[in-house]
Amino acid sequence: MTVGERVRIPAREGRAIEVGAGQAFRVIDVEGQQVADLFAFCAEDVSEYASAEHTRAYVDRLFPRVAEPFVTNRRRPILRFEADESPGVHDMLCAACDPTRFAGLGVEGWHASCQENLEKAMAELGYERVEVPQPINLFMNIPVEADGSLGWKPAPTIAGDAVTMRAELDCYVVVSACPQDIVAINGLDPTPIEIELLG
Amino acid sequence: MTVGERVRIPAREGRAIEVGAGQAFRVIDVEGQQVADLFAFCAEDVSEYASAEHTRAYVDRLFPRVAEPFVTNRRRPILRFEADESPGVHDMLCAACDPTRFAGLGVEGWHASCQENLEKAMAELGYERVEVPQPINLFMNIPVEADGSLGWKPAPTIAGDAVTMRAELDCYVVVSACPQDIVAINGLDPTPIEIELLG
Repeated sequence: MTVGERVRIPAREGRAIEVGAGQAFRVIDVEGQQVADLFAFCAEDVSEYASAEHTRAYVDRLFPRVAEPFVTNRRRPILRFEADESPGVHDMLCAACDPTRFAGLGVEGWHASCQENLEKAMAELGYERVEVPQPINLFMNIPVEADGSLGWKPAPTIAGDAVTMRAELDCYVVVSACPQDIVAINGLDPTPIEIELLG
Repeated sequence: MTVGERVRIPAREGRAIEVGAGQAFRVIDVEGQQVADLFAFCAEDVSEYASAEHTRAYVDRLFPRVAEPFVTNRRRPILRFEADESPGVHDMLCAACDPTRFAGLGVEGWHASCQENLEKAMAELGYERVEVPQPINLFMNIPVEADGSLGWKPAPTIAGDAVTMRAELDCYVVVSACPQDIVAINGLDPTPIEIELLG
């Protein structure tokens, strides 16, 4: 993938890209109201990955602000939140959707999921078995109420909204255009995501 | 371990117990103002474990209420929150303390940590390498503000406060008497925890 190139991730699918330390990339909500699950694994050892629980403790927040880092399960900055061209609503509380999630929602038979998209993308890079981290759920609207209850609301993004991240370590970044169409986080209509590699 | 038996976990240490499906146990803050990091792994396959991010999505809350379950990374109930004889303040947002946490806090040389306590307890059961899940941080006081910022406050417990959990799967339960003495979550004075096996 070269600088300026865009990778289109079709609705309900996932893709991995390699990003070198110092390089930045944008994750773009092409049509709006679409969640992008983002994962980052250290290229030199994929057992080290962007970790929500270590990041929360590092920045003392539910989600980093622009200029703050996402850190790994070894508390090393792996991505820096460089720019937010969106309403600024993101989540790191909810697990990736997976076959057991859709079974619990009453789906019979196979349903695309962010977990399978992650596993498939990493397998294509030669990693047949990886831990499935808590994702960085870009554009995902999970309000936290004062009593600790969580809501599941449609993403507030419009077409072209985007987030820019800069890698601080060589990493594999996986993005899944979330296939959730039972709970309304994607407005019940999953749509594509794009990744643009910057300098 | 037999019914009614209590295991004393010295300050800054951890212990594992085996709990059969249907059995309950209490985790007791012996002296008060002490966090207990709790982990639960399925006995038949320790790659399945109590998962904070799956539990939040299952109960639609930051932390289950009494009578609600903690579920695994395969969304199966593994523990049920049976009783809470404490102020009801608990956390599932912050990673276990570990060597990199203490290094970041300026500690030079070795410092006991919940992650090492977990790894040591599981190694004694024959599991030399396990994923380190986001713990169920009993009695831990991490207020979440409306702007998404997190606080690190002393545990509000007094001597004898306790939580009761009932296993829904055969599991290994690991409890660490949190050794954190730089951040004030344990009142800067780590103390013991006890586990009591119930029927």
